[in-house]
Amino acid sequence: MHDDEREIRELVTSWMTLTRQGDLEGVLGLMAEDAVFLAPGQPPMTKAGFAAAAQAAAGATAPTISGTSEIEELEVLGDWAFLRTRLSVVITPPDGGPTRTRAGYTLSILKRERGRWVLARDANLLGPAVDSSA
Amino acid sequence: MHDDEREIRELVTSWMTLTRQGDLEGVLGLMAEDAVFLAPGQPPMTKAGFAAAAQAAAGATAPTISGTSEIEELEVLGDWAFLRTRLSVVITPPDGGPTRTRAGYTLSILKRERGRWVLARDANLLGPAVDSSA
Repeated sequence: MHDDEREIRELVTSWMTLTRQGDLEGVLGLMAEDAVFLAPGQPPMTKAGFAAAAQAAAGATAPTISGTSEIEELEVLGDWAFLRTRLSVVITPPDGGPTRTRAGYTLSILKRERGRWVLARDANLLGPAVDSSA
Repeated sequence: MHDDEREIRELVTSWMTLTRQGDLEGVLGLMAEDAVFLAPGQPPMTKAGFAAAAQAAAGATAPTISGTSEIEELEVLGDWAFLRTRLSVVITPPDGGPTRTRAGYTLSILKRERGRWVLARDANLLGPAVDSSA
């Protein structure tokens, strides 16, 4: 496996680990300054918007977000790359309430900045949350 | 404007025109053989799947699909490019029934094949259809 591909796979793994740990600063460090996030029914979200949404959700009532990301396609195009994953996320509230699961696909664009890969554009096609206790 | 950017903008315009005309062969000619389409709540769709879905929807009861695509970002990366649009689609049934509108964002990856740009990967984040007569 080429170094670029290995580094991008490590980026995906780090993203999932830091998200599960609630480490917002760590996650922000994995994205480009001009990152843009797309999700169904939402306007495009900037890095600042991502941070604000995560901070609003933080605190004692913040759920644990534990996911698995299976890479379906990864193409390195020089200093850019694109990535398709099948993503599954389990959202666990801290109070022992029912978990929710979401699953779906993503299409992302990454770029190499100052020698390291970061997430630049992300389309997240996960469906609405489903109560897995139902 | 660079030639590549102009050609990609023409591709977007042609896509919308051919879709409105119901010209499936024309639309298929604008995509790569290995094209993949992502939409919320759907598994990834191949070019053959796109053609089958369009053929299933064709015929006397086929609606007219008329859209406008506003390019928000276009980056050419050598023989690849990525594109973000804000897309609005009006679906008009042939029997004079109510039109439906859908609006949202797309993230697409294009590539140059045999000298011409084609759509290679597409994430369509349009929300569910809304009855605009409501």
